[in-house]
Amino acid sequence: MHTIVFTGRMVMIGCGSIGQGVLPLILRHIDIDPARITIITACERGHDVAKKYGITFINKALTPDDYRDRLTPMLRKGDFLLNVSVDVSSVALVELCRDVGALYLDTCIEPWAGGYTDPGLSPSLRSNYALREQMLALRVDGPAPTALVTHGANPGLVSHFVKQALLNIAADSGMAVEPPKSRDAWAGLAAFLGVKVIHIAERDTQVGAEPKAVGEFVNTWSIDGFVGEGCQPAELGWGSHEKGLPPEGRRHDFGRGSAIYLMRPGASQRVRTWTPKEGPFHGFLITHSESISIADYFTVRDGETVTYRPTVHYAYHPCDDAVVSLHELAGKNWRMQPRQRLMMNEIVSGIDELGVLLAGHGKGAYWFGSQLSITEARELAPHNSATSLQVTATVLAGIVWALENPGLGILEPDEIDFVRILEIARPYLGPLVGVYTDWTPLEGRGDLFPEDVDRSDPWQFKNVRVV
Amino acid sequence: MHTIVFTGRMVMIGCGSIGQGVLPLILRHIDIDPARITIITACERGHDVAKKYGITFINKALTPDDYRDRLTPMLRKGDFLLNVSVDVSSVALVELCRDVGALYLDTCIEPWAGGYTDPGLSPSLRSNYALREQMLALRVDGPAPTALVTHGANPGLVSHFVKQALLNIAADSGMAVEPPKSRDAWAGLAAFLGVKVIHIAERDTQVGAEPKAVGEFVNTWSIDGFVGEGCQPAELGWGSHEKGLPPEGRRHDFGRGSAIYLMRPGASQRVRTWTPKEGPFHGFLITHSESISIADYFTVRDGETVTYRPTVHYAYHPCDDAVVSLHELAGKNWRMQPRQRLMMNEIVSGIDELGVLLAGHGKGAYWFGSQLSITEARELAPHNSATSLQVTATVLAGIVWALENPGLGILEPDEIDFVRILEIARPYLGPLVGVYTDWTPLEGRGDLFPEDVDRSDPWQFKNVRVV
Ligand SMILES: NC(=O)c1ccc[n+]([C@@H]2O[C@H](COP(=O)([O-])OP(=O)(O)OC[C@H]3O[C@@H](n4cnc5c(N)ncnc54)[C@H](O)[C@@H]3O)[C@@H](O)[C@H]2O)c1
Ligand SMILES: NC(=O)c1ccc[n+]([C@@H]2O[C@H](COP(=O)([O-])OP(=O)(O)OC[C@H]3O[C@@H](n4cnc5c(N)ncnc54)[C@H](O)[C@@H]3O)[C@@H](O)[C@H]2O)c1
Repeated sequence: MHTIVFTGRMVMIGCGSIGQGVLPLILRHIDIDPARITIITACERGHDVAKKYGITFINKALTPDDYRDRLTPMLRKGDFLLNVSVDVSSVALVELCRDVGALYLDTCIEPWAGGYTDPGLSPSLRSNYALREQMLALRVDGPAPTALVTHGANPGLVSHFVKQALLNIAADSGMAVEPPKSRDAWAGLAAFLGVKVIHIAERDTQVGAEPKAVGEFVNTWSIDGFVGEGCQPAELGWGSHEKGLPPEGRRHDFGRGSAIYLMRPGASQRVRTWTPKEGPFHGFLITHSESISIADYFTVRDGETVTYRPTVHYAYHPCDDAVVSLHELAGKNWRMQPRQRLMMNEIVSGIDELGVLLAGHGKGAYWFGSQLSITEARELAPHNSATSLQVTATVLAGIVWALENPGLGILEPDEIDFVRILEIARPYLGPLVGVYTDWTPLEGRGDLFPEDVDRSDPWQFKNVRVV
Repeated sequence: MHTIVFTGRMVMIGCGSIGQGVLPLILRHIDIDPARITIITACERGHDVAKKYGITFINKALTPDDYRDRLTPMLRKGDFLLNVSVDVSSVALVELCRDVGALYLDTCIEPWAGGYTDPGLSPSLRSNYALREQMLALRVDGPAPTALVTHGANPGLVSHFVKQALLNIAADSGMAVEPPKSRDAWAGLAAFLGVKVIHIAERDTQVGAEPKAVGEFVNTWSIDGFVGEGCQPAELGWGSHEKGLPPEGRRHDFGRGSAIYLMRPGASQRVRTWTPKEGPFHGFLITHSESISIADYFTVRDGETVTYRPTVHYAYHPCDDAVVSLHELAGKNWRMQPRQRLMMNEIVSGIDELGVLLAGHGKGAYWFGSQLSITEARELAPHNSATSLQVTATVLAGIVWALENPGLGILEPDEIDFVRILEIARPYLGPLVGVYTDWTPLEGRGDLFPEDVDRSDPWQFKNVRVV
């Protein structure tokens, strides 16, 4: 039954929706004595779940001042630090793990508390672009313990979906393609197919029994996490086919240069996208690490010149209650509601339709992803919703992969074996479907009012953006 | 008990949320034999209510071809045509009433079906500005039967709130003001007080037992009505203090010139506003007749030159389910959802906080309006929600007033006796409150991102508009 045996110790930071959801998967697939797992967290959430599994639960927030002193005694070479918290610096933790020789995995490059909205930092420095650059700067020559960063559903799983989608499009186009073996070859395939745009297109239709109340933020995963990233600047990997920066678009003056940001919170910027069950819809251009890492990974250069790069961004339709929560939050100039409610057991129906839309190629647009329902999620694993299970299954897969590949240093999802990850995660993802569509962001535009669109290229960001 | 005796006949067109809600009020306050009332409508909604009251119910839609032939035999001099339908031309009905000598009241100047979104008409001609001009063009010299147009809550009641609010601000500023007796004097008072902006600021917090489903439009009043007006261009009365047109702003090339429109659906334009219970929030800049009529009414001219006019517009936060419904509708490029649900009995809690925010004067901003809860509405009258009762109470007041003043031709709410209307409607409005605030649309702006605002005048529309 177990996929792998792990004799080391594991420290899990955070025990919210993801922490609680991943525990049953870890104990089901990894042969580890629960007594060797310790949870460090900052609230009582998940205490009951930890207790049920016989796991030590320490409710005492980590701080920049105490995290080294507290974690160092708990982590030796070969141990595992699983970070599924908010407000604890991923960069700090990866450095610590490198120093002690422990493996590491997170699902988001988090700053210390307040880092997403520190008005003392420029929007460029509050971006995920900047956080990623800080993380990648920790890379060392020579062996280092594997640190797999941003390996949840998205960021995470969707990078593997992109590769599977590229292979599917190639096969459906009658090409006999062997899975590429290098970054260059993957980028070359995307360029060859002519993929202009990759949306992480997600529609969460889950609803709870209780309607959202006034002054309450309701979501299906971390509210702190979502509001934090929603208040960061909108960010997108910036494709080589784009004719011009959007009016509020800015380039960073440091780093790899594969992404831009907009001078506005992502939660205030809607974009047009498409999923098979929902059809066309407006999602929010929330910044995410995958927008930057995927664009970077699939960049083709001729010397210094970028000859190919897709535009990559998230287009997120959270559950309806979260859409209204965002509307309320914007109306208060991004000051968080006094109450939060993370729905889990009270969800009564809905699915999380999460996938990648690869568009602008010869076959139009192709969506590949998971259509996991709350009902199926509950059958598959306890303590999960459709949203969390897509994340926790990928976390599980990442832990297994890291244990199998322990000495590779800091890695992003794009850089690891997508076949192995999908193999482990797939049983938890519900229907995995690939669907072609001739939808473009020009469909139905300009009927009632003239709109400033570029009819010569449907996949210009200008057409995707909602103004 | 009855306020007035009416011995004529009454034809009511439409029997939706407003039609059903107004019937018990009519029968309670007007001494009329139910056998003399006839309902003509286009669906079965309200058949049970009509039956309960003993009212004839004809489910057969009026069309441009048959409305004259069908209505003329039903209406003689002194009879009453109450129009609470969608998709029947108000202008056509008022002409008919003038011809037969019948009194008339509606709550919206409706075009025939499809008129709001006829792509054969320019945005200027699809506006409420144009519909109002058509209506006012029917005015004749000499006596004509009273036709009170747009006399619901808003448009309607809010025009009376504006006058009460002006008197309250004057009194609170230590001025001994007699209620003005003419349009000129009212406009002069607003100008003297320095009111720059009038928002019709509404926050509907009503929620139902069932959450909105995918592909469903949910609202607390007419969904056809709301989607129709939401797809019209955003419109606003254009104040004399405004320094420049918004980027998408256009002037009409005909008519009274008191309003502008934006080249986009009102349902896609958010604006910043404030109500006492909600505090600051984003409303939708839905076009409404009162935005134009109030701005027109309070215009001061020196010869041809406008020396004073307030900016007037609606800032509507519909119930949360309608906010998500609008989001879904926008994502489908304004193609109506396959299913609609007008909530009435299934509402479980919430209030409709509807009033006018007069701002930019010496005392900052002042909101005056009704905070009617669903609970109180149900105690006050059957077949109503908080939303409908604010409308139907004003319809009742308007019918009584028209019966008391039968020969005055076409009139807008601004032109009739606000004291008498408030006297009749007030028992149905719940708490009527006036609250001052120092909130302005500059509050909390530019904290996370630089914003293009005019700090020299908080009440420029530029600051109110959400981009
Ligand atoms: N990549 C993905 O697909 C994906 C999806 C969902 C969540 N996430 C990320 O996973 C993380 C957790 O998400 P969640 O939904 O479980 O969040 P959550 O809000 O439900 O839980 C956060 C947890 O962090 C703990 N925490 C907060 N401050 C802490 C501190 N100083 N020290 C220790 N613990 C602290 C809290 O007590 C809580 O247990 C977030 O970073 C989120 O962005 C990623
Ligand atoms: N001023 C205000 O405050 C205010 C508030 C709410 C509604 N309204 C207006 O009142 C009107 C009715 O609103 P509602 O919420 O009751 O709408 P509703 O959608 O609940 O009902 C509309 C009614 O019109 C009838 N109808 C449609 N086409 C018809 C036709 N061709 N002939 C005869 N009847 C027809 C329908 O059968 C239905 O009974 C709308 O014009 C709306 O804009 C005004």
